[in-house]
Amino acid sequence: MDEKPRNAAVRSVKAAVRAMSGYTLVQPDCPVKLNQNECPFDVPEDLKREIVDEALAANWGRYPGFVPGEVKESIGKRHGLGPGYVLIGNGSNELIQAVFQATIATGDRVVLPAPTFTLYALMGRIAGADIRTVYLKADMSFDVDRLVEESAHPEVRLVVLCSPNNPTGSMISPADTARIAEETDGLVVVDEAYYEFGGVSCVELISDYPNIVITRTFSKALGAAGLRLGYLVADQALTREIEKVELPYNVNIISLIAARKLIAQETLIEERAAIIQSERQRVFQALLNLPGIRPYPSHANFVLFEAERPVDEIFHGLIDRGVLIRDVSRYPMLERGMRVTIGLPEENDAFLTTLRDVLADQGRESAN
Amino acid sequence: MDEKPRNAAVRSVKAAVRAMSGYTLVQPDCPVKLNQNECPFDVPEDLKREIVDEALAANWGRYPGFVPGEVKESIGKRHGLGPGYVLIGNGSNELIQAVFQATIATGDRVVLPAPTFTLYALMGRIAGADIRTVYLKADMSFDVDRLVEESAHPEVRLVVLCSPNNPTGSMISPADTARIAEETDGLVVVDEAYYEFGGVSCVELISDYPNIVITRTFSKALGAAGLRLGYLVADQALTREIEKVELPYNVNIISLIAARKLIAQETLIEERAAIIQSERQRVFQALLNLPGIRPYPSHANFVLFEAERPVDEIFHGLIDRGVLIRDVSRYPMLERGMRVTIGLPEENDAFLTTLRDVLADQGRESAN
Repeated sequence: MDEKPRNAAVRSVKAAVRAMSGYTLVQPDCPVKLNQNECPFDVPEDLKREIVDEALAANWGRYPGFVPGEVKESIGKRHGLGPGYVLIGNGSNELIQAVFQATIATGDRVVLPAPTFTLYALMGRIAGADIRTVYLKADMSFDVDRLVEESAHPEVRLVVLCSPNNPTGSMISPADTARIAEETDGLVVVDEAYYEFGGVSCVELISDYPNIVITRTFSKALGAAGLRLGYLVADQALTREIEKVELPYNVNIISLIAARKLIAQETLIEERAAIIQSERQRVFQALLNLPGIRPYPSHANFVLFEAERPVDEIFHGLIDRGVLIRDVSRYPMLERGMRVTIGLPEENDAFLTTLRDVLADQGRESAN
Repeated sequence: MDEKPRNAAVRSVKAAVRAMSGYTLVQPDCPVKLNQNECPFDVPEDLKREIVDEALAANWGRYPGFVPGEVKESIGKRHGLGPGYVLIGNGSNELIQAVFQATIATGDRVVLPAPTFTLYALMGRIAGADIRTVYLKADMSFDVDRLVEESAHPEVRLVVLCSPNNPTGSMISPADTARIAEETDGLVVVDEAYYEFGGVSCVELISDYPNIVITRTFSKALGAAGLRLGYLVADQALTREIEKVELPYNVNIISLIAARKLIAQETLIEERAAIIQSERQRVFQALLNLPGIRPYPSHANFVLFEAERPVDEIFHGLIDRGVLIRDVSRYPMLERGMRVTIGLPEENDAFLTTLRDVLADQGRESAN
């Protein structure tokens, strides 16, 4: 086999995709894992058993129902909406991807803040979008005036806002989101993956702004990242269109059972979110007191912080001592940025102690 | 809220998507369900337990591994290939969709036989493809000369062949597939969802034809439609590109555990496929002996047949008597077509007896 046909085959792939490096994650094995904004609590044992027992009773050889009606109803009810307002997916990413597929043809304009969750830009590039970037302000708040201005352009098909925003923890208010939705001819996706840690939602806007699409996930406060579950809430006329793009039977029967049971655990979710919120405050304060470290206020289950010392040194210094956080220094504006997930109190302690050690060691080294 | 903004929101959706009716399925509840080409055998009880026990021991709050290495290795081994040749998805549909996303920009040419599995054309329309249809011959065999001719056009980016083909049961040979792969500058996807019932695969072609992509599913012979699992095999240079388009952590932890265990059940899969094959032969012969019914030879776990009487009468006559098959009369060329999945021997008996009843009743009615 010579090289020519092998290269020719890869050339069938779009140039934009070939140019991409893909979404990758280097994950050294560390006892304290604070790099993926996961929930530090597993699904409670008795709930896992209940889900698994129901799964065992089902016939795995049969496709899931064509419409996951029961799950849509449970989720809709949580928001005071009927099942027609809800779509279910393998994580909210799948649903955001469906919105891109439903709306973006080659050359269509998409507005994205930056820095934000990397996947939106990747999805845009795959779809051949003309991506317009609106940088956050220096304090990591959304630049609403610039967002309104860019979104108002008649060629804009889609605006994606992550609120609370990953990896900064900043939020955009419902009033500001409404302003953007009012001015744009496109759809406004609000990715509320971290909603439970901030408590502010745009779901109620959808009755007045039928171009707003909300996505939520089971991977953060609901503590089921391993099951890959998310949902989308929007006006019924819009869910009907987006649904056409979703693959039939996309979510497996076991995750559907879990979704129905997890969404009902409101008290558990609130209790856990409250613990994370109070731990977040504690970690934020502790970081604020560390010389050479600048944390940003966060409404999510993580804290962004900047360091005077090189990110690489701190990030690897932590790994060497068994603590894994996220290096976000390659995000725009965050050359000195790191993101730490809020974990269990003892994990947060381990992170803070270890960070102090790393900074002290580095201080000594540079003094030599 | 007036109507204007509501309509405006929907107008953000691509015209091609709005024009689509979507993939829908009316599924009346019938005791004998032979409409989705599912495996009539559930996953064995002890295997379900094993999977569930391993799932219970895992932390559901954590994301699946970034690369499902172990599963890729098990699957690759089955084909004598390394894990780099394999991608995993939520059903093979998700992987075929990834190929469309990786290759098709607005206006790009895609070649599809017809009639075939409906989703390929839907995916093509969502991606804005210029779809070129090559009809099967009257005996439902692939029109290889026409396929080669259409695929050789320099603008073709993708050819999708379902073999054995749904809903006809016909196959394209590896030699003919190789001819198409040789002549086209695009990728050739061979959807081998029904491979185990025909026994002929194009997997071995990928070493000589790096533009061939094979997809397989766990939903048919492997009997796990409820878990939504599929995989893709292609040259490593190509899987690297397609992987960029797949969402990270797409498959949940429980399905990953199941995939690893199910792929190892070679004897079970072969035994079950053998039962289906012999039942298929029996159903085919019985249909051949029915006056006014014309079955087509099949290499899959279903049989396509045509009737002299209107499809609607037979399809609903069967439903009224508790037997659900698939009305495929809206597929091109199949105005008189129905598709029956091969089930358990008693289910196939129920179908054949009921069909005889329906035909006899209708004969009596029209004699009055």
